[in-house]
Amino acid sequence: MRPKPLVTLLTDFGARDPFVGIMKGVILGICPDASLIDLCHEVPAHDILGAGFLLHTAVPAFPAGTIHVAVVDPGVGGARRPILAELDTQMFVAPDNGVLSHLLEAAGRRRVRHLVAQQYWRHPVSRSFHGRDIFAPVAGHLALGVEPARFGPEIGDPVQLEIPRPWREPAGRIHGTVVWVDRFGNCITNIGQVEIDALSASAGERLCVRVAGRPLGTLVGHFDDVPPGDAGAIVGSAGYVELFCNRGNLAHQRSLVPGDPVIVEAGEQR
Amino acid sequence: MRPKPLVTLLTDFGARDPFVGIMKGVILGICPDASLIDLCHEVPAHDILGAGFLLHTAVPAFPAGTIHVAVVDPGVGGARRPILAELDTQMFVAPDNGVLSHLLEAAGRRRVRHLVAQQYWRHPVSRSFHGRDIFAPVAGHLALGVEPARFGPEIGDPVQLEIPRPWREPAGRIHGTVVWVDRFGNCITNIGQVEIDALSASAGERLCVRVAGRPLGTLVGHFDDVPPGDAGAIVGSAGYVELFCNRGNLAHQRSLVPGDPVIVEAGEQR
Amino acid sequence: MRPKPLVTLLTDFGARDPFVGIMKGVILGICPDASLIDLCHEVPAHDILGAGFLLHTAVPAFPAGTIHVAVVDPGVGGARRPILAELDTQMFVAPDNGVLSHLLEAAGRRRVRHLVAQQYWRHPVSRSFHGRDIFAPVAGHLALGVEPARFGPEIGDPVQLEIPRPWREPAGRIHGTVVWVDRFGNCITNIGQVEIDALSASAGERLCVRVAGRPLGTLVGHFDDVPPGDAGAIVGSAGYVELFCNRGNLAHQRSLVPGDPVIVEAGEQR
Repeated sequence: MRPKPLVTLLTDFGARDPFVGIMKGVILGICPDASLIDLCHEVPAHDILGAGFLLHTAVPAFPAGTIHVAVVDPGVGGARRPILAELDTQMFVAPDNGVLSHLLEAAGRRRVRHLVAQQYWRHPVSRSFHGRDIFAPVAGHLALGVEPARFGPEIGDPVQLEIPRPWREPAGRIHGTVVWVDRFGNCITNIGQVEIDALSASAGERLCVRVAGRPLGTLVGHFDDVPPGDAGAIVGSAGYVELFCNRGNLAHQRSLVPGDPVIVEAGEQR
Repeated sequence: MRPKPLVTLLTDFGARDPFVGIMKGVILGICPDASLIDLCHEVPAHDILGAGFLLHTAVPAFPAGTIHVAVVDPGVGGARRPILAELDTQMFVAPDNGVLSHLLEAAGRRRVRHLVAQQYWRHPVSRSFHGRDIFAPVAGHLALGVEPARFGPEIGDPVQLEIPRPWREPAGRIHGTVVWVDRFGNCITNIGQVEIDALSASAGERLCVRVAGRPLGTLVGHFDDVPPGDAGAIVGSAGYVELFCNRGNLAHQRSLVPGDPVIVEAGEQR
Repeated sequence: MRPKPLVTLLTDFGARDPFVGIMKGVILGICPDASLIDLCHEVPAHDILGAGFLLHTAVPAFPAGTIHVAVVDPGVGGARRPILAELDTQMFVAPDNGVLSHLLEAAGRRRVRHLVAQQYWRHPVSRSFHGRDIFAPVAGHLALGVEPARFGPEIGDPVQLEIPRPWREPAGRIHGTVVWVDRFGNCITNIGQVEIDALSASAGERLCVRVAGRPLGTLVGHFDDVPPGDAGAIVGSAGYVELFCNRGNLAHQRSLVPGDPVIVEAGEQR
């Protein structure tokens, strides 16, 4: 027996309109036994790279066969292609505008298709809501078990946006940036466990962190390793260095936003 | 075999309270295999016509047999009746306060019942949360397959509020209003495809749009038909003229709100 | 046949991150046929008692066997224990920080376990997201039917925070506080039906309410018992005295917040 299909939705549609509910109605109208999960709908409007970052941190928690629908689509109705990407064991339905950049880069096995088979779309196709008319019905048919090859031909050139990368000075300091501020005011950076491991191996001592040009604190194991009200950094749940204030809101306190520069270096805070 | 029942919820309950989750617990306690979809819970508090507009734009995306629960109910506990409306192929459970006005007006086949059969309610019935105590349990029993006639007698006089309509000058200009501002700042009007078609047929040329007394732009096919930062109008996904700023937030830029007057006329923008 | 498992989630994770969706992916990855319900994710960050109050008002609407996951967890990664509480007919998975205080106090039958059986966790366990790595997978295995005893040993000392209680003067006045402000600006107090009944029995007359040192109005049966724009109080849907402005937002009008003192007394408003 086919396992119960799982479909997630990630959009910048927010909560004040019925757009997400409409997409779900289309999916369940096609595949009534699908389970639907909202990943996030509060991505800032048109923030393609932000959506891509969130999606890439969420995907490891999902089982093989999950179908992810990602609709952050400022160019809806224009020339950008709708695509279906099979990346390792999961599937992604999205506009070809770079929202899958992080995932495409990280994927071992990847196959990307241009969605052209209009029999799997909802008609008439509107000019401004492909979430309802293309992406949701394609996800519904995928959930029903329609083979990926039926939706369109393979393409070799999906859009991959440049993702800001951390770099390391010869002297050892790691330079990165804040890429996301979460609800608690924690600032997630693009500096991963691998960069930290490399620095620790060569430095073998305490690591300290600066953000936006000012000292922050040291890299610790968990929030409660610093007193309430103090700041520090941990390697967070998605595998990236995350700046925090224990029981407080760091981003508010220091007015930190995505793009702010972060430095990790060996030694005590100066 | 009965298809898996689908129940949607539309309320003005927002997200800071567990009201919606409580209604879902009641529904699934009665009909565990129902699929539940949130249509929208951020309708402005007590905005009956706004809720009705959203519901009416969402309904076409749902399959026959869907049960919609709409609870925007400022008169909860007072004299207004709870009703069940069968409109074409779908069902609606709601207070009889006009929230179904758009749908009642558009429906071909309609049958409306006054919910009086208290054996399908949750007891004791509170004075302030009929969503939990009347509407959710009725939806749960409908989802279980209880016949509509069991819930109460037919009525012929459900409340229908007056819906603002567009009108057309003899000279051809269409006058309408903004009825909803979506998350992207797009302003959805009450001017539909049919009014546009009538004007185009007689005018046979470019149509331009004014809003709140100022020129906006021309009616185009999709957002990217105007440069980023420029404004225009399209016939949106719900079939109404929708004012937009490509990759921007029109409502913020021009401080537009529901009720603002909109004019569509033939010719170039002046 | 085992009934379809029902799992609710209550967190302070908000909507701007995919944290809740990630937890759902973990649960459905383990138990694909579970039904998931969001109770509330907008609990103010780190507000343990607020979350506990909401959970306790929601639980009566859910069927026996429901599994509730409550993750308001400022001490994540520190010394606090993860627990599983069987309280009457429902189950609760949460950090042992007092979030279950209201429920533990009210429960007839209670059995609380320390979650130690790591085979039911997701590995590696992060330091900052036990919702994903401990609470969600435990809920998933519970939903699958794993016996509670398998997750860890019973404990007798779960954390119970002190809950603010109403008290009554010998002269009869009841003193309480606002404990929650809902989306409509209604102010839910900690004064329950039982206190009102005791006062009514002795006073046998009209009851009036003061809040934050000023007169508010009388205790009525439902919102529409006072004219639109006027204030009053009802015994609300959760069984507590609730202060309201009919068709208005009382909390905004009077700047009321949790903690504000409330007095209920016999007689006409002075």
